[in-house]
Amino acid sequence: MDMLWSGWGDPAKAAPLPDSVIALLRDLLGVKPREAAPAGLADIEVPESPLGDEAREALADAVGGLSFVRTDPESRIRHTRGKSTPDLLRIRAGDVADVPAAVVLPAGHDEVLAVLAVCAEHDLTVVPFGGGTSVVGGLAPQGGRPFVALDLRRMDRMLSLDPVSRTAILQPGLRAPEAEALLAEHGFTLGHFPQSYEWATIGGFAAARSSGQASAGYGRFDEMVLGLTVATPRGTLDAGRAPRSAAGPDLRQLVLGSEGALGVITSVTVRIRPVPQVTVYEGWRFPGFAEGTAALRRLAQDGPRPTVLRLSDETETMIGLAQPDAIGASGGPSTAGCVAITGYEGTEEDTAYRRARAAAVLRDCGGEYLGEEPGRRWAHGRYSAPYLRDALLDAGAFAETLETATFWSRLPELYDSVRHALTATLAGAGTPPLVMCHISHVYENGASLYFTVVSAQGEDPVAHWAPAKTAANEAIIAAGGTISHHHGVGGDHRDWYVREAGPLGIAALRAVKDALDPAGLLNPGILLPGR
Amino acid sequence: MDMLWSGWGDPAKAAPLPDSVIALLRDLLGVKPREAAPAGLADIEVPESPLGDEAREALADAVGGLSFVRTDPESRIRHTRGKSTPDLLRIRAGDVADVPAAVVLPAGHDEVLAVLAVCAEHDLTVVPFGGGTSVVGGLAPQGGRPFVALDLRRMDRMLSLDPVSRTAILQPGLRAPEAEALLAEHGFTLGHFPQSYEWATIGGFAAARSSGQASAGYGRFDEMVLGLTVATPRGTLDAGRAPRSAAGPDLRQLVLGSEGALGVITSVTVRIRPVPQVTVYEGWRFPGFAEGTAALRRLAQDGPRPTVLRLSDETETMIGLAQPDAIGASGGPSTAGCVAITGYEGTEEDTAYRRARAAAVLRDCGGEYLGEEPGRRWAHGRYSAPYLRDALLDAGAFAETLETATFWSRLPELYDSVRHALTATLAGAGTPPLVMCHISHVYENGASLYFTVVSAQGEDPVAHWAPAKTAANEAIIAAGGTISHHHGVGGDHRDWYVREAGPLGIAALRAVKDALDPAGLLNPGILLPGR
Repeated sequence: MDMLWSGWGDPAKAAPLPDSVIALLRDLLGVKPREAAPAGLADIEVPESPLGDEAREALADAVGGLSFVRTDPESRIRHTRGKSTPDLLRIRAGDVADVPAAVVLPAGHDEVLAVLAVCAEHDLTVVPFGGGTSVVGGLAPQGGRPFVALDLRRMDRMLSLDPVSRTAILQPGLRAPEAEALLAEHGFTLGHFPQSYEWATIGGFAAARSSGQASAGYGRFDEMVLGLTVATPRGTLDAGRAPRSAAGPDLRQLVLGSEGALGVITSVTVRIRPVPQVTVYEGWRFPGFAEGTAALRRLAQDGPRPTVLRLSDETETMIGLAQPDAIGASGGPSTAGCVAITGYEGTEEDTAYRRARAAAVLRDCGGEYLGEEPGRRWAHGRYSAPYLRDALLDAGAFAETLETATFWSRLPELYDSVRHALTATLAGAGTPPLVMCHISHVYENGASLYFTVVSAQGEDPVAHWAPAKTAANEAIIAAGGTISHHHGVGGDHRDWYVREAGPLGIAALRAVKDALDPAGLLNPGILLPGR
Repeated sequence: MDMLWSGWGDPAKAAPLPDSVIALLRDLLGVKPREAAPAGLADIEVPESPLGDEAREALADAVGGLSFVRTDPESRIRHTRGKSTPDLLRIRAGDVADVPAAVVLPAGHDEVLAVLAVCAEHDLTVVPFGGGTSVVGGLAPQGGRPFVALDLRRMDRMLSLDPVSRTAILQPGLRAPEAEALLAEHGFTLGHFPQSYEWATIGGFAAARSSGQASAGYGRFDEMVLGLTVATPRGTLDAGRAPRSAAGPDLRQLVLGSEGALGVITSVTVRIRPVPQVTVYEGWRFPGFAEGTAALRRLAQDGPRPTVLRLSDETETMIGLAQPDAIGASGGPSTAGCVAITGYEGTEEDTAYRRARAAAVLRDCGGEYLGEEPGRRWAHGRYSAPYLRDALLDAGAFAETLETATFWSRLPELYDSVRHALTATLAGAGTPPLVMCHISHVYENGASLYFTVVSAQGEDPVAHWAPAKTAANEAIIAAGGTISHHHGVGGDHRDWYVREAGPLGIAALRAVKDALDPAGLLNPGILLPGR
């Protein structure tokens, strides 16, 4: 099944907003209903593909036939940009300025190498395409050269599973639910459940350093990766010969986060874990964000570590975005304070022990136990926020998210300054926003902050949002945060990433790119500036 | 205090072998007593320093005076090579072919930058020097250009400590015990206790991806590092803005393991943990190495994870190298089977819980509890093996160690093939060895193997050992292991590392080196081939 071209996910799962929420948006934020429905896919005018016959045939030879080299308008529209709110607004408006010349579907590593060779010969650049879920402009190369969207969906197999070492080798085009299904046949799980779970792919998780909702227990995706095979214009790079090594710099960590700019990830060796016997999620309420943050920090530093651990601030708790299904429901629970979700997955004995001890810590930090119901609601709605965004956009509202991370001692300042930057910019532009936030991932030494912004759209919604996003980025850098904790750099964060990495950091990565991709074929302008 | 120039550690701690052990070496391995005592330091002829007056004065200006630019024979001898057995045998024989032109002692980051500039101007190469404990030839640059040993001992401060985030910023020349003392004043510990603990430095731990004896609980040193500042010939590189990030490749992981070839690490931000309330070590006996390995794997994969977890094979158990103090003692415990050491550090409650549950797992895997006495003996002798090596060399024996790591499913083959390579080569050369091994570090997906070899020396002991070391390296690569789990690459492992990283991996690192160190000043021939 294909993702909704103009929004998120399975069109059958779309749900309009209740009238009560529409009234709330109108009264609280001044949101006016949209006047025109979005363009239909068939209405969008797509310029003819610049792909010449010679290149088309060479690509067909590389991937086993013309049916895997697609230049029809629908295929090209479906591979235009990703799923950020500006991406959705642009494609709904029929803007296909970033459309690929062709969509090419290789079936394996050698075919990827062959495609790269053809593209080098025909001066085409290449954008690796997994689930197409980038929210940072990672699928819109810069510089205007014609490009191929290298759709990896045919590379969707589990190549091997080693139950003794608890590792599996997965192809990059496997979507997360398919990967989980293949692993579950052997009693294993990855434990990687980001909000994009239903659509995103193994290769994308690795390329963009994804982090899932159960990262407190299972770790980030980059911590699950034990090995990678990468197809580059210069040939094949294999990284990861042992779980850990002192043999030089860790080349895996150079590939992870490289966002397709250094090579195309063609297989990933991942750590796997037994499917949990027990899965339980529950809610806790804290008087305020500071108290809740202190509680999360104590669990992250001294344990026991829940598998899921997140905390909504006062605004998010009030609006109930932590429980999307509850929006507009009457007679719900109190919305005072800050709600945390804690989850435990594992064996009966281990989850019981961790849950009991964590409960004592949370109570000691001022937490009030809310039972399992908030946890069940969170789990039920954990992948539904992007659907909610579609409904908000349909209703004429603007909704977007952004995220960052820092060390614990700097978290309050980062929180305040990003909130202030978003609020001041949008209020100054005449569309005072709701800014909600939650701590989405915790570590011994710090945590991530995930912000959701909802406001009226303004005249030109993409242009209207840009200064607020810029102000947030500047606030993040000024407060010592990283420009992205788990969304990545893409094109949207690139100029701030360059400041974060510093001139020598960028020089080092540019040198690696020039060594592996001397003609600059791969994702020009993504991650690194220039070709 | 300076390290013993011709061996390991504090000369006052040296202990000769008991006569019973000397007899054992003679009867079992054919070891003959040495005929001549090693050369005295004053007897060694050191060629005059090639450092010119202009360079000397420029270096003195860079580091605050001539007293920090040393060209006397003793300083230069003490900075000649590291502490591998071939290194010791060479320096004892008066071989100073790898002597530095000068020893330079900068007091801070800016002085390091200044030294690099002077060295570039005067065509001197630079070898960063921490504790001088490399056992892989990491302090002997290749190509024969005159070099400066950049001794970082003056950079021995803790720059800051953040108790909320549980981080500290340490200078590279801090030795581990001094770092622990500074952290302990605030109630914290690094938890990093490698065998080189008493002498090795923070910068060296980072540069060489050190791993300590408590890595099961505290992690490897590269897992403790949250940030690094690096002085390069092109300027300063800062890496690590947040605990974790999706902003591009992880530049920290490019510096970790770079062994001074990309830059000089001038500060390290580390994760710190509370000093444990409880510290307890104990012993377990398994019928054989396979059973013990299975037990360690179960704890590493399903928990609970001890803080220390190691397993000696049958030979090491028998010889008692796991308990160096017990060698030669009569009436000791049975030496049958394989002994594991498990240790627990933390709070009362946490250690009690982990210890009890781990004991159940170990019993279930066929383990027999030996009580705390073997643990106490292990802890007492945990840093004494290098002293034992000195005594063995003095007695005319050869003793050396090497190590590797792989995934659990490949561990038995790696173990067999390295043992066989060492035994066959040395036996074939007329000096059948004792080859002992232990699992020194465990991970969910694999483990490391640490081999100790003892034999007679042969006519030219350095040349006699070389084919055995080569055979072990070849066996490691053939069995899919990494050429080093925690000793590093240096010059000794470089040619095998090049095969492990592959041509594109090496091309990527070479490109980074050329970007940061275009004139090839830093550690020529160490880690990477060529200048």
